[in-house]
Amino acid sequence: MVHLVVIGGGVIGLSVAWRAAQRGHGVSLYDPHTARGASWVAGGMLAPVTEAWHGEESLLDLGSASLERWPSFAADLGDAGLSTAGTIVAALDQADRAELDRLAAYVAERGRDVDALTGRALRQLEPALGPAVRAGLHVPGDLSVDNRQLLSALRDASAQAGVRFAATVPEADVTVIAAGAWSGSLHPLLEKLVRPVKGEILRLEARSGALPPPTRTIRGHVEGRHVYLVPRANGLVVGATQYESGFDLHPKAGGVRDLLNDAEQLLPGITEYALTEVTAGLRPGSPDNLPLVGWLEPGVIVATGHYRNGLLLAPITADTVVALLEDEPIPPEAKAADPIRFTEGSPWK
Amino acid sequence: MVHLVVIGGGVIGLSVAWRAAQRGHGVSLYDPHTARGASWVAGGMLAPVTEAWHGEESLLDLGSASLERWPSFAADLGDAGLSTAGTIVAALDQADRAELDRLAAYVAERGRDVDALTGRALRQLEPALGPAVRAGLHVPGDLSVDNRQLLSALRDASAQAGVRFAATVPEADVTVIAAGAWSGSLHPLLEKLVRPVKGEILRLEARSGALPPPTRTIRGHVEGRHVYLVPRANGLVVGATQYESGFDLHPKAGGVRDLLNDAEQLLPGITEYALTEVTAGLRPGSPDNLPLVGWLEPGVIVATGHYRNGLLLAPITADTVVALLEDEPIPPEAKAADPIRFTEGSPWK
Repeated sequence: MVHLVVIGGGVIGLSVAWRAAQRGHGVSLYDPHTARGASWVAGGMLAPVTEAWHGEESLLDLGSASLERWPSFAADLGDAGLSTAGTIVAALDQADRAELDRLAAYVAERGRDVDALTGRALRQLEPALGPAVRAGLHVPGDLSVDNRQLLSALRDASAQAGVRFAATVPEADVTVIAAGAWSGSLHPLLEKLVRPVKGEILRLEARSGALPPPTRTIRGHVEGRHVYLVPRANGLVVGATQYESGFDLHPKAGGVRDLLNDAEQLLPGITEYALTEVTAGLRPGSPDNLPLVGWLEPGVIVATGHYRNGLLLAPITADTVVALLEDEPIPPEAKAADPIRFTEGSPWK
Repeated sequence: MVHLVVIGGGVIGLSVAWRAAQRGHGVSLYDPHTARGASWVAGGMLAPVTEAWHGEESLLDLGSASLERWPSFAADLGDAGLSTAGTIVAALDQADRAELDRLAAYVAERGRDVDALTGRALRQLEPALGPAVRAGLHVPGDLSVDNRQLLSALRDASAQAGVRFAATVPEADVTVIAAGAWSGSLHPLLEKLVRPVKGEILRLEARSGALPPPTRTIRGHVEGRHVYLVPRANGLVVGATQYESGFDLHPKAGGVRDLLNDAEQLLPGITEYALTEVTAGLRPGSPDNLPLVGWLEPGVIVATGHYRNGLLLAPITADTVVALLEDEPIPPEAKAADPIRFTEGSPWK
């Protein structure tokens, strides 16, 4: 049994703490704002294949491996807010359609079902889609999760498994740095490796008389910007902008305007929805968009740099940290996340 | 000395309570959410002439008479957040310019200074104005007030003058109904006379690196919609949409989108501002857009229905109510606001 302290109570820190406590380790978690960082702001898509970054094969492998772990991760938590309703990727013009064909081939290559549909066929699936949607893909089985329900379930499960939520950082055998974008200030090796990537996100609620929200996640590409709409009980999360401006957490007028205009192109009925929340979060970016999960030095494990993928990668990250603690082999897909790729030869090692 | 209870702690209720207490009356004020209704949401323009509703001469006379009382009203309060920086009315296209000429003639007719300027000359006054602004009027001396600073000053002055903030409605000689859009439920005569007119409003803050906000109020007309931007310390209030949807207080996505897009036409730099607040308020509408200020029945005075003009009309409304209490002549311009114009012959009189 290891005495472990986890610094950071977002989805990564909570998942690590929970899984480690389940295995019988003594776990304390320190975060003055537990569950209130980027994980609280997130949209909750768990769709590595539809996101499909060409040339980021290691990240896709890691995401796919974590996705496979999601159903049992969610089942262990009880009601974690998982949805299996799938994704629609909508195209508004010819350029988008060419991109769509490439994406369809790519998704099919990865062994996933995917249907290329006309705008009309898409509107039969999701009547809220607007006339500007000319064509699209339907990817059944894509997962999403209600991030706030998940965080709440993780807190409860952690407490139940014996995790102590500490008001100060206690002594420990092993420290896990899982403080997201703020991790850079917690260890000299991380200073240059983790940076905040700001994202604004909106939450909308259907009002009486408004069209009901879609049941599937809707993704689209409007005027060069990516937008996604993830269903929630009686509403939607609309995300997300992406830019670097340090630790500023104020949503910008221009970002909110883009999200509203882009979402309206896909779902015109949202103009009648209530705008219930405008938030910004700071994703923890890494130099190669892969997370940093592994030993930093004896007694210090890092688990951050998950960028846009913290929710997706939580199960495999937690399993990896537990394997490191117990000196067991880590999942093979997680090897690419070892921070040694940046720290090898550093005077701090 | 009259024992008075004022129902409603917005700008009207607080002004009445304060002025009545100053005159030595015993005043209690009841409002479970003092200073949190439409007055809290408001933009704070005090510019009846620039607003210039043709055909609403009684309202213009009432507004002008109240405007004259504003400087001493503000001086009595101490630091009430009054600004004398003036207004710019911006035109984006030819149709707007024709409207501008009519407005300039009208403002001059009312004895006010007004300069018709080119876009370039306007940008010399206010460098934040965008290239889409082709021409405009500069109306020096137009007033505006920081509504929240005003409400705070009114609360303090009321308490100082002896107003009691009551947790329940006490017994009284005279009741003043000043509950804004909610007044309709407080007296059967008001049921059909007062209706909520929703307005959404944004608050923006200049961030480091962004252009500083203008010093004058900027008004414009974009795609058929009126928009105004009222300066605040290091920021702006952007308002306001206007529609009727009952007592719903949720800002709508479509309204926020319109305000952001329209404000950006006038001041492109606001896209870099932080969006710090999105709020909706309910203006108390009346059938003829004039307020309802006068005796409803023995022992009951009404002071509501101020629609878009509560802040502007607060001084004259307070003076009118005090005159009614003391059986003195009311300001002549306030006669048009007597509710008797609707209640004459009603079975409730």
